[in-house]
Amino acid sequence: MMRLLLQILRNNSSLKSELNGGTKASALPKLFSRWLHAPTQPPSFGIAFDIDGVLLRGETSTGGSPQALRRLYYHSANSCSISALKVPYVFLTNGGGVPESERAKELSKQLGVDILPLQVIQGHTPFRELVKRYEDDLIVAVGKGEPGRVMSEYGFKNVLSIDDYASCFPNIDPLAQYKKWTKMQPTDREMALRTDPCSQRVQAVFIVSDPVDWSRDIQVLCDILRTGGLPGQEIAHQPPLFFANDDIAYQALFPAERLGMGAFRIALESIFNRIHTNNMEYTSYGKPNPFVFKNAENVLLQVLQSAYNNIQSSGEMQPFKRLYMIGDNPSVDINGAKQAGHPWVSILTRTGVFKGIGNHADYPADLVVNSVEEAVDYILRKEHTS
Amino acid sequence: MMRLLLQILRNNSSLKSELNGGTKASALPKLFSRWLHAPTQPPSFGIAFDIDGVLLRGETSTGGSPQALRRLYYHSANSCSISALKVPYVFLTNGGGVPESERAKELSKQLGVDILPLQVIQGHTPFRELVKRYEDDLIVAVGKGEPGRVMSEYGFKNVLSIDDYASCFPNIDPLAQYKKWTKMQPTDREMALRTDPCSQRVQAVFIVSDPVDWSRDIQVLCDILRTGGLPGQEIAHQPPLFFANDDIAYQALFPAERLGMGAFRIALESIFNRIHTNNMEYTSYGKPNPFVFKNAENVLLQVLQSAYNNIQSSGEMQPFKRLYMIGDNPSVDINGAKQAGHPWVSILTRTGVFKGIGNHADYPADLVVNSVEEAVDYILRKEHTS
Repeated sequence: MMRLLLQILRNNSSLKSELNGGTKASALPKLFSRWLHAPTQPPSFGIAFDIDGVLLRGETSTGGSPQALRRLYYHSANSCSISALKVPYVFLTNGGGVPESERAKELSKQLGVDILPLQVIQGHTPFRELVKRYEDDLIVAVGKGEPGRVMSEYGFKNVLSIDDYASCFPNIDPLAQYKKWTKMQPTDREMALRTDPCSQRVQAVFIVSDPVDWSRDIQVLCDILRTGGLPGQEIAHQPPLFFANDDIAYQALFPAERLGMGAFRIALESIFNRIHTNNMEYTSYGKPNPFVFKNAENVLLQVLQSAYNNIQSSGEMQPFKRLYMIGDNPSVDINGAKQAGHPWVSILTRTGVFKGIGNHADYPADLVVNSVEEAVDYILRKEHTS
Repeated sequence: MMRLLLQILRNNSSLKSELNGGTKASALPKLFSRWLHAPTQPPSFGIAFDIDGVLLRGETSTGGSPQALRRLYYHSANSCSISALKVPYVFLTNGGGVPESERAKELSKQLGVDILPLQVIQGHTPFRELVKRYEDDLIVAVGKGEPGRVMSEYGFKNVLSIDDYASCFPNIDPLAQYKKWTKMQPTDREMALRTDPCSQRVQAVFIVSDPVDWSRDIQVLCDILRTGGLPGQEIAHQPPLFFANDDIAYQALFPAERLGMGAFRIALESIFNRIHTNNMEYTSYGKPNPFVFKNAENVLLQVLQSAYNNIQSSGEMQPFKRLYMIGDNPSVDINGAKQAGHPWVSILTRTGVFKGIGNHADYPADLVVNSVEEAVDYILRKEHTS
């Protein structure tokens, strides 16, 4: 008993470093709760949840998501924090527009559990890997929310949101007089002036989240892409273009699906290819891209370690036997899980894009349920951990 | 002499009725000026001017347009009004967004001559001919300016701008929270409520001028077109869709061309055809459509009659021997004049879309000049009326 307590205190520091800047849990109660409740072996399965149309519709929870998530923690624990996590899970969304740390806080409020930034994998999260390539280059970030701040927090040092970038080119948007946009933040304006984008070539464009002002964004992106990053100048080689996802449509509050980033990509590409000699070149991330699922598997191992690190380090950890993808979009969530293959199991809910009675014709899921609550209930019964 | 004066007074009433609600010219000085200056025969030629990139760049005149237009009036007349018009001319633009009467007033200010509504032919002017078909039906009008007012003034009784229409469907635009639009006018809101568009099928959609909020407009139009005019309801037959023009790009203040209504059509069509089983059906007006030039020829005869009606009635008038189309856009203005054939002669200016040294490769004009002033000078010398 004494030896166990000493071990607890030794593990305490390494535990804190694992919490990845997220919700801090007091380690001692954690390890006691683990000592009281933890199985000798960590679970050999994990869950990836899509957000929109599965856990949330707009800003509010759907499909009994708060209850479903609470079941992934030890009932006897005082709070649903990493310290009481029983089943490792992540959020695997194609959405975005805010840093992962901020989204984790929002989701914690909306769903009533303590979520780590580590657990939030957004469409633009893979852009982090491109910092080495564009760290000091002028890049433009597009989309709702704060695309510039998202990219800055990833480590890009010379990023401008398209709002700030466009404001440096008088008359670039012939429809501007018909729009009433929010004014630039002083810091943004200072940055815009400091970087002097009119004379610098844009080296890459990142569509971080769903673009808002399509007429201006398509116009400015055509200008950037056709001129090698210098609007109003001669035609030159297209700079690289990255999309956080390629979703044509998604389920929001309106009864019918709404157009997403994939629809914007189609609009931009159709116009660009009509006015330019070469076809538009681009890379899009997000589900159903299989590497997104491979990355989610690694993150799930880190989450497991954060919860169970008093038992063993990730080095000794066994790979997952089963990983469950719970989504509402057959062509994105189910198609992606199927392409990823073992250990992924696909569960389709009827709370979002898919509303069919049976299974989906083109992308049949391993299981179809009415809600995320039903999905979690099935998983826990199957894994004998309910 | 006495007989002439009596004839002047008899013609006075018919003259006024010809002025078509535009700038009123006092008839007596007109007819004296005509008596002093008019040739025995009215001219056998006329001119159609494109506006953007030929007469104006943005809001200001270009290519010496005010001087060029003044040369079409009798120098000795006190004012450049219809009463002193020597050469009949019209404005033939694919632009729009305001009623012809209002555009005539704007142009009069910008160009320093008195312009009749009759002389202003905009992209949406042909929509007037569709009143009989949709007079009492719910129709949606899209574009910058006041598309709803334009259509109401044509005689459509149940028209809603897409701003007012969209405001009747909560959550139809998932990006609305990121936009700061001007509030609806009370009259518009009353109308929106009176017509109760949520329960009425939209019978036709008119793209009157360049759409401003592309993300919302493409979304709402896809909703209307896919459901037979009832957003959020079942898939049904597409209602008719009309575009005022199909210009991919036009010259505004920015050095490079800006995307126009044709680019919006490409974006809408590409997305619609991707998410819907049937391809999008539509009709587009505006240059280079040959019927636009046939219509312009008829209007020019009416303008000639307004100016010369004390001499003869339009019934007795000879058809024009030559009609000059002065434009900056080869694929629109020059291509259109060439398709229209006799009596159209095409003159391409270098003040807008076209900036080449020689002639255009695909749509060579009959004459290429540096400015509209040069074009008018050429015409007047050729017609021996300078």
